[in-house]
Amino acid sequence: MAGNTFGQLFRITTFGESHGRAIGLVVDGCPAGLPVDEAFVQAELARRRPGQSKIVTQRKEADQVEFFSGIFEGQTTGSPIGMAIFNADARSKDYSHIADKFRPSHADYTYHAKWGTRDYRGGGRSSARETAARVAGGALAKLFLKSYGIEVRAYVSQVGHLSLPGSYQDVDLSKTEDNPVRCPDMGMAAKMERFIKEVRKAGDTVGGVVSAVITGCPAGLGEPAFDKLHADLGKAMLSINACKGFEYGSGFEGVSMRGSEHNDAFQNQDGQIVTTTNHSGGIQGGISNGMDIYFRAAFKPVATIVPPQASVNEAGEAVTVEGKGRHDPCVVPRAVPIVEAMAALTVADHILRQRSARV
Amino acid sequence: MAGNTFGQLFRITTFGESHGRAIGLVVDGCPAGLPVDEAFVQAELARRRPGQSKIVTQRKEADQVEFFSGIFEGQTTGSPIGMAIFNADARSKDYSHIADKFRPSHADYTYHAKWGTRDYRGGGRSSARETAARVAGGALAKLFLKSYGIEVRAYVSQVGHLSLPGSYQDVDLSKTEDNPVRCPDMGMAAKMERFIKEVRKAGDTVGGVVSAVITGCPAGLGEPAFDKLHADLGKAMLSINACKGFEYGSGFEGVSMRGSEHNDAFQNQDGQIVTTTNHSGGIQGGISNGMDIYFRAAFKPVATIVPPQASVNEAGEAVTVEGKGRHDPCVVPRAVPIVEAMAALTVADHILRQRSARV
Amino acid sequence: MAGNTFGQLFRITTFGESHGRAIGLVVDGCPAGLPVDEAFVQAELARRRPGQSKIVTQRKEADQVEFFSGIFEGQTTGSPIGMAIFNADARSKDYSHIADKFRPSHADYTYHAKWGTRDYRGGGRSSARETAARVAGGALAKLFLKSYGIEVRAYVSQVGHLSLPGSYQDVDLSKTEDNPVRCPDMGMAAKMERFIKEVRKAGDTVGGVVSAVITGCPAGLGEPAFDKLHADLGKAMLSINACKGFEYGSGFEGVSMRGSEHNDAFQNQDGQIVTTTNHSGGIQGGISNGMDIYFRAAFKPVATIVPPQASVNEAGEAVTVEGKGRHDPCVVPRAVPIVEAMAALTVADHILRQRSARV
Amino acid sequence: MAGNTFGQLFRITTFGESHGRAIGLVVDGCPAGLPVDEAFVQAELARRRPGQSKIVTQRKEADQVEFFSGIFEGQTTGSPIGMAIFNADARSKDYSHIADKFRPSHADYTYHAKWGTRDYRGGGRSSARETAARVAGGALAKLFLKSYGIEVRAYVSQVGHLSLPGSYQDVDLSKTEDNPVRCPDMGMAAKMERFIKEVRKAGDTVGGVVSAVITGCPAGLGEPAFDKLHADLGKAMLSINACKGFEYGSGFEGVSMRGSEHNDAFQNQDGQIVTTTNHSGGIQGGISNGMDIYFRAAFKPVATIVPPQASVNEAGEAVTVEGKGRHDPCVVPRAVPIVEAMAALTVADHILRQRSARV
Repeated sequence: MAGNTFGQLFRITTFGESHGRAIGLVVDGCPAGLPVDEAFVQAELARRRPGQSKIVTQRKEADQVEFFSGIFEGQTTGSPIGMAIFNADARSKDYSHIADKFRPSHADYTYHAKWGTRDYRGGGRSSARETAARVAGGALAKLFLKSYGIEVRAYVSQVGHLSLPGSYQDVDLSKTEDNPVRCPDMGMAAKMERFIKEVRKAGDTVGGVVSAVITGCPAGLGEPAFDKLHADLGKAMLSINACKGFEYGSGFEGVSMRGSEHNDAFQNQDGQIVTTTNHSGGIQGGISNGMDIYFRAAFKPVATIVPPQASVNEAGEAVTVEGKGRHDPCVVPRAVPIVEAMAALTVADHILRQRSARV
Repeated sequence: MAGNTFGQLFRITTFGESHGRAIGLVVDGCPAGLPVDEAFVQAELARRRPGQSKIVTQRKEADQVEFFSGIFEGQTTGSPIGMAIFNADARSKDYSHIADKFRPSHADYTYHAKWGTRDYRGGGRSSARETAARVAGGALAKLFLKSYGIEVRAYVSQVGHLSLPGSYQDVDLSKTEDNPVRCPDMGMAAKMERFIKEVRKAGDTVGGVVSAVITGCPAGLGEPAFDKLHADLGKAMLSINACKGFEYGSGFEGVSMRGSEHNDAFQNQDGQIVTTTNHSGGIQGGISNGMDIYFRAAFKPVATIVPPQASVNEAGEAVTVEGKGRHDPCVVPRAVPIVEAMAALTVADHILRQRSARV
Repeated sequence: MAGNTFGQLFRITTFGESHGRAIGLVVDGCPAGLPVDEAFVQAELARRRPGQSKIVTQRKEADQVEFFSGIFEGQTTGSPIGMAIFNADARSKDYSHIADKFRPSHADYTYHAKWGTRDYRGGGRSSARETAARVAGGALAKLFLKSYGIEVRAYVSQVGHLSLPGSYQDVDLSKTEDNPVRCPDMGMAAKMERFIKEVRKAGDTVGGVVSAVITGCPAGLGEPAFDKLHADLGKAMLSINACKGFEYGSGFEGVSMRGSEHNDAFQNQDGQIVTTTNHSGGIQGGISNGMDIYFRAAFKPVATIVPPQASVNEAGEAVTVEGKGRHDPCVVPRAVPIVEAMAALTVADHILRQRSARV
Repeated sequence: MAGNTFGQLFRITTFGESHGRAIGLVVDGCPAGLPVDEAFVQAELARRRPGQSKIVTQRKEADQVEFFSGIFEGQTTGSPIGMAIFNADARSKDYSHIADKFRPSHADYTYHAKWGTRDYRGGGRSSARETAARVAGGALAKLFLKSYGIEVRAYVSQVGHLSLPGSYQDVDLSKTEDNPVRCPDMGMAAKMERFIKEVRKAGDTVGGVVSAVITGCPAGLGEPAFDKLHADLGKAMLSINACKGFEYGSGFEGVSMRGSEHNDAFQNQDGQIVTTTNHSGGIQGGISNGMDIYFRAAFKPVATIVPPQASVNEAGEAVTVEGKGRHDPCVVPRAVPIVEAMAALTVADHILRQRSARV
């Protein structure tokens, strides 16, 4: 219950702090007989890794994952899969100057208020470093989904005020990895990259939006009432550091539409029931209907900035906080694989849950 | 795991279909010693009840709740609280014409795809009637929160294109119940009401936004990683029928801000640590910081409309669906108490979880 | 977490006190498409019902179950099944004399210590009346198991010092219901019945043992580590009121055996792998091996007796407690259907869990 | 749900196989501010370690635990505690001869039936090696309980037919660690040791019983209905490899007693409510009453024996299995710290759960 477990049947439990000895996770419930492509897991981690381009944090971490258990002769056995990534570049000294200060819009104050203590080095448990464990677990979920023909693809659709118009159908998602921003529109990507560099030069940060689409999802995934598929997807996204909003299908814009315009008509297309439009975002009554599932997640500007900021310390005294640590000017390029990982874990979980639907 | 339970420590399990014998719930984990004001529970249900005004569905249900257990001499005992609301006005005949048809943007098709069977009367389990059980459970959570000085207040901030500018601080929330729309701005409420009536006259429906604020919440609620307070709030909202999006604090708009502008500076105000701005929406690193928690939930237009719609039936044949059942032209006025209920349940749960934070 | 839910995927949540308005439960996760024989559910309740014979409590309760939801046209729909049994014969006055007294070996004191309050009427939530809800839920589990050819049968194998020698294979389990004791050996049953009557005449009570066998269980049910099939069965039994011990297979007696004697040799019997002996009780490494699963559950003598007993009241003062309420002289005859219900729920849950074992 | 997690609020998730790279666990929910004596954790592991005496398996494992996270400046932070023990002495070759054979009364066959695959080396996940992770987690639970004055002590009370008469009150538990059998009666310990050596010399194995007592436990721990304190203790014990039975308080012997004899009278002892006898074993209605909690767990003879045994292989062919691996002639001496660990984890969990009992 302490919040470090995600999923019911395909579930991960993560551990680790930014500057501790290792971060890692246990994947429990991954079905037996899944071939594990360890290189793929490592490649997914590389997509999230710091230092991968000029527009992300320059902290150096190889993020080499070690597999401890649950895999035998290249396949999962049904036993829990323990994994760890040892922290290589833990410059604890970088953070001593903020040991008793509460950095604005970080978790320093709230962690202190909750536990009366905290590992202040690099944000400790609240560091986005924790998401590496999610990506490792999500990579296994992706391999599982692959066997169902399900694919999760995310991309950057907005950085600051620069917003890609249209939907996921208007872009070529195979181009997402072709630029450091992970925006599949090359023109927009170039603008975003320039903008992020400007912001970084000013010692500042900016927010963004990650869009995602899940294709190949069969009808029938999701539960009624509370564990609706989109509710679990929403929680998955909102649990990612810096995420402030989630919408799926027509989302906030759908609010202004009429029912007659918003409703997705069913039709029989060569024996398969499909909808002519997809404002529902592939989910109706909380359960997938076989159409593409698409959603958007909003990320706030990173809280670590260079200019001095007014704050208080543990004693409640006024202090000045200065951003010395290495940080991302914009979180969304590296958030793309995290969004995919969390979506993959959510869908994998619901595939297993679906297996109990009928006698 | 079948999705009908919400919460970890303060938890509800709901049951019931639109046209079955009764809907109801079990509240498990409500602490002992809480005085239960049964009239308050009933009053909350009245806020959600059909037929309460001209702009909501005219289905007639008294929604009289019966308490089965867990309360003794006016107080909770720590035992589970069973409650039921018997269905009075179950006109099953109304629905025979859609027994094998999939109504567009309803859950008919997905339920059929998942379970191979469904109670088609009034949407069965997918009916918004299920939310009455949430409101009953949420009323107990509200009573629990009251003992902590915590209050949850929601209101309608948008209907179709009619959007109330500004934030919750710009309106007088004591006026929310003064009009049938539940918009605290009387001028805007009048416009919204007229608009909803127009839409209804056209046999159509329209979406809306419910905004909410939680005041009096102490710092320290929420868990790191996956069970962040806002992630659980988001899931709670997204689990409500017709909800398509959730954002808290600066939300999607915060994306375009710079970190230097978005960060909330801490200051010591008469011995209490507060923030000068509140783009964080009262939650940092997933944990409450003692400031107001505010969020918005988007609701799509109701799927039931009067004009004939093209669809298919279970056999995959093209059919026409006509809206005969009683329905809401706009869901948000009645969604207000549901949003409050789900938020109250979420916070109550995290208050209990917080009790395990320290040795 | 408040303890009123059993099972992970096939799960029940019960509510209700001895003298409240109703007891009941929600069955969540029962797969769709199961024909529900309501008469069978009622018949199972009749086996647990008070007043069914001279050797059980004479409290009069019809124990008529009402189905609220989750069943449509005679079949489960996958939606939660709400059920209630209204309390007919709630003589609250019977218990006013013990309102502030702690009855020896009852839960009065511990409930008071835990919650600071309690519904003292008839033991409130701690009353064995709660087990009626288990039997109703277990009846659905039995119907589910039946479709797999799995059967759970329990019987009384010991009352006080009167112990049936041999194993479940030495008796004809079809005779269990032929006598009020529910001991399949007619001679022993007669002795036990006489003994129970003697004990009752003395105003006293006595304990007993219920034995059970699960036949038709496929290999592969159960999880490694903590949720071993026998561990969940053990918890299920120990959760029944008055249960003090559990053993399966060779149990406590197996302790004195040598490995060479205790090991069950595998052999191929017409293409099926079986064991020549079954000291393992059908479970190896926590997972079923396809052989019969058998176990025993020990029940202490009922705490309610007629002779005056020394005790204390809430103020800590010495008081005398006298047994006025109607009670069972021996719990095991009525425990038989409860043991079966809890075992059926456990196996049903593991059948659903097993569905996620492989890719 | 895959069975590798124990506990609700103070919870462990374990991973690892006998011959994989590492075993380990995540402790989630351990409250913040607990001083962690790492040497104590290591000392507990030493009590379980193979090779510690002549009467246990001679497999050589240092069982050196590494702490990955959740501890900062010597104290828990409330973040999950990752731990691992690397496997040093993994002689995979020892097991190639049984790669496709099902060893009698091992989990080989059931794992194969469940997952269609298995790590056959040393039993893989079904190896008792997994219990090292439990002991590490249990050591943290013990440190937590210590701050409450609660102590868990287990000892060997039976080996084969050699049974220590009397109760835990008749022995001096401070002597348990004074001999390799972990029986606090030196005379009996010597007999047991001789007996185990004889059995080992014959290439055979024998079972035993571990008794335990929990002192200092406050009244009020445990939940009604399903999560009774003794039900969770029972599940904890039964989840340990080779455990076949559990009883608490009067247990199976209490069956033959009369209620008038079995009931524990309450009395006021200097302002504290106590019972004059303790047949209840410190638990009434599933909730602790402040008296000593005591129980017994039965362990079967270890399945690995030296003499050749008839069995079958994956193809269903008759084969002979010979015991070549290193193994324990009797499991109970090393089971003592495991029993203590699981009991400590159970009580720690219920202490946290108890914190939600009252408003």
